[in-house]
Amino acid sequence: MMNRLDSVSNEKIKLAVKIAASSKARKETGLFFLEGLRLCRDSALTGTVIRYAFVTDKSYEKFGDDAEFICSKANEAYLISETVADKLSLTQTPQGFFCLCEKCSSLSLSSVDSEGKYIALENIQDPANLGAICRTAEALGITGAILCGCCDRYSPKSQRAAMGSLLRLPVLESDDLCRDIELLKEKGMAVYATSPDSSAEKITEIPMDGGIVCVIGNEGNGVSDEVFSLCRKVTIPMKGNAESLNASMAAAITMWEMMK
Amino acid sequence: MMNRLDSVSNEKIKLAVKIAASSKARKETGLFFLEGLRLCRDSALTGTVIRYAFVTDKSYEKFGDDAEFICSKANEAYLISETVADKLSLTQTPQGFFCLCEKCSSLSLSSVDSEGKYIALENIQDPANLGAICRTAEALGITGAILCGCCDRYSPKSQRAAMGSLLRLPVLESDDLCRDIELLKEKGMAVYATSPDSSAEKITEIPMDGGIVCVIGNEGNGVSDEVFSLCRKVTIPMKGNAESLNASMAAAITMWEMMK
Repeated sequence: MMNRLDSVSNEKIKLAVKIAASSKARKETGLFFLEGLRLCRDSALTGTVIRYAFVTDKSYEKFGDDAEFICSKANEAYLISETVADKLSLTQTPQGFFCLCEKCSSLSLSSVDSEGKYIALENIQDPANLGAICRTAEALGITGAILCGCCDRYSPKSQRAAMGSLLRLPVLESDDLCRDIELLKEKGMAVYATSPDSSAEKITEIPMDGGIVCVIGNEGNGVSDEVFSLCRKVTIPMKGNAESLNASMAAAITMWEMMK
Repeated sequence: MMNRLDSVSNEKIKLAVKIAASSKARKETGLFFLEGLRLCRDSALTGTVIRYAFVTDKSYEKFGDDAEFICSKANEAYLISETVADKLSLTQTPQGFFCLCEKCSSLSLSSVDSEGKYIALENIQDPANLGAICRTAEALGITGAILCGCCDRYSPKSQRAAMGSLLRLPVLESDDLCRDIELLKEKGMAVYATSPDSSAEKITEIPMDGGIVCVIGNEGNGVSDEVFSLCRKVTIPMKGNAESLNASMAAAITMWEMMK
C-alpha cells in the first residue's frame, strides 16, 4: 500500500517545486527534478538515485508496470492527487509522473578515455540546445561531453530536450576549459574548435582517428579567443549566405564527422 | 520628414498586432509580421514588399543608416513611440524595428530544378525546428525547401528561428506531397525519405549526384507511410541508445550529406 500526499503545502512537494524552479536550489541541495513517464523511467533505468517519486492515481492505474517500476526504484514513492500534480507540473499536459533525484557524479579528467571522442560545449546558454546536442551526441555514439560555463544541465528544460540522454551520457564539468584542454592535450588527444571562419581547416579534411575533443562555442559569440588559441581551428564549409549555422546544428554536423 | 503613429489603437498598428498573432489572419490577408533590425533589414535586402515599416524614435536615431534603408524600401514608414513598440513587440527586449510585409510567391513545381538538391519537410510542427532547418539549408547551399503540412513559415517564431533564411530560400508549398513526389520523380529526381529504421539504406552509401529530394518527417511520428511507399528509405546510422535524432538534427546531417 503506497503512501499518499494530497496537500500542496507538504514539505516534499514544496521542495520539488523549488528544485524545479531554481538552479541555485539545485546547486545547494544536489537535487534535480524530472517530469514525465519517459524521463522518470529513464532515471530509474540508469540507476539515478530517486529520492521521491510522485505519481497520480490516474497515471498509476494507466501505466501500471512503468509506475510500479519507477516507484520500486525510488527511496520514497507517493500517490498524489491531480491538484498536487498541477502544482508540480511545468507542462501543459502533465503525464502524472514526477521524480526528485540526486545529481549524478561528474566525470573526472583522469577518467576521460584518451582514445575517445568528446564534444566540449563552451557557454551554451539555451537549455534546448544543450539538451538537443547531448541527445544527438548519445545517438551518434560520442564518448562524453565536457561542459564549461553552460546553462544548468539539470534544469527541467535541459533534461526534457535531452530525452534522457543527460542521464546516460558521461559529462565532465569544467570550471576552466583552457586548463583542461591543456591537460587533455597532454594525454595525447587532438583538440579542435569550430569556427565560421572560412579560412580555417575544413572539418572534412582533418584526421578523426584517435582521441578527439571538439569544442562548440556560445550561440552568439562562438568559441572564446582563449580557447581558440589552444585548439586547431576547424570549419564546416558553407555555400549559402546564412550567416552561420546555429550552435546545435553545427554540433550535429561536427559530431557526425567525428563519428563517421 | 517621416509620419508618426503614436496611438496603439491606430488601424495600422492593430492590423500588425493581428497579423503577428494569427496564422488565419496571415492567410486571409497575405501579410506577415517581422520584428527586429536584422529581419527587417533582410526583408528590405531581399526585395520583400514592405507595406508598413515602424521604427521607434530611439532606434531611428541609434541605427540611422539601417533605419533609413528599411524605411526607404517600405511603401509607408512611420516613427512610433515606445508605447506603440511595446504593443507590437513579441520579445522581451524590443529593438524598435517592425515591418508588415506581403508574403513572397512560392516556388511552382515546374520551376523546381531537376538537377537541384531539395529538402522536403512533412508535418514539421515546431516553428523553431522549421526555422532552424531552413537556416541550415541555406547555409549548406540547399536549392530549396518543399513544405507540406508544416506549421506556418510566416509566423514570427519561424521567421525568427530562420534568421532571414525563409525570406531567401526558395520554398514550394505542397498540398499533396505524394502527388508532388510522383511528379518530381517523373522529372528524373531521386526521392529519399529518412527513417530511424536501422535496416534502411545508410545515408552515407547512397548516390547524391544529380537532382535529389530528401524528406524529413514530423517530430514525433516521422515520415508518413504513404510518403515512404514512394521513396527510397534512408537512415542515419546510430551507435548510441538515444531513441533517435530529433527532426532538426536529422535534417542537418541529411542535408550535410546531400551537399558534401
